[in-house]
Amino acid sequence: MDLLDGIYTRRSIRYFTDEPVDKDHLIEMIKAGTWAPSGLNNQPWRFVIINDRAMLIKLSSLTKYKRIIEESRSCIAVYVDKKAMYNDVKDHQAIGACIQNMLLAAHALGLGSVWLGEILNKSDSVNSLLDISDEMGLMAVIAIGHPADRKATSKRRDISEVILKEI
Amino acid sequence: MDLLDGIYTRRSIRYFTDEPVDKDHLIEMIKAGTWAPSGLNNQPWRFVIINDRAMLIKLSSLTKYKRIIEESRSCIAVYVDKKAMYNDVKDHQAIGACIQNMLLAAHALGLGSVWLGEILNKSDSVNSLLDISDEMGLMAVIAIGHPADRKATSKRRDISEVILKEI
Repeated sequence: MDLLDGIYTRRSIRYFTDEPVDKDHLIEMIKAGTWAPSGLNNQPWRFVIINDRAMLIKLSSLTKYKRIIEESRSCIAVYVDKKAMYNDVKDHQAIGACIQNMLLAAHALGLGSVWLGEILNKSDSVNSLLDISDEMGLMAVIAIGHPADRKATSKRRDISEVILKEI
Repeated sequence: MDLLDGIYTRRSIRYFTDEPVDKDHLIEMIKAGTWAPSGLNNQPWRFVIINDRAMLIKLSSLTKYKRIIEESRSCIAVYVDKKAMYNDVKDHQAIGACIQNMLLAAHALGLGSVWLGEILNKSDSVNSLLDISDEMGLMAVIAIGHPADRKATSKRRDISEVILKEI
């Protein structure tokens, strides 16, 4: 897939088929994520892969987007290692860059994925469910699967609205 | 350029030739940035394009990475519109995703770019210099140009170090 085409055609995919996701593809998504830049190259990102159906069902109960996690075949919980952080804003930006690489990689691999943030309201419960130390801060859950045949559309502001000035 | 190849071969480029950057390419970078996902699709990103040499020299004096901005042919200052924000962590992540799309687009277009964050220490001075309202929070400056012939290398932790567990 062409890089610019991939950036423009990636959509948040919220409906999935029953087909499982290859482990190699989940690893490729994570590898792509780790090639994001980070301030001082501190690479603060950490990952939990969840394939187990019973665990996905439990995880789904912690968000109002329950159906999406239930329907997904795999999820990757993205964490920030608090011990590796040096600046909140820059570390959160680096995590965002990492997640974007992961979503683009999923798209290039023919997978659908969606970045779920609302579940951060239940971060403590997620850490407890996944048995992850509180030194790890939940940053997002990415729900992944093969896209079901639905049209995902999205809109953006015209570019003239976001360019403040040119000097 | 292939999407996954682009993710793996992008490097922070800190040395540039004298060749100017096409305006169309700067616009393409910004357009790519805006196709990042954002929480509630709030699209909080805003941009200032700087091509003027005298302004680049003034901007360069606000960071210890002075040489990089001086040597770049253009910079894009990335802002967050504070009025559009809804959650600090998620908005900063969205800005990171946007910047990553911009860096990947630059790479696909044959440009070199580097994400500069240290200049945030002088955010007030940057806003004052660019005559930008304090309702806009400086998030990063991206220095851009045609890459000079130097080998940019980088390293990442092995993937086994960043996967906490698989369930």
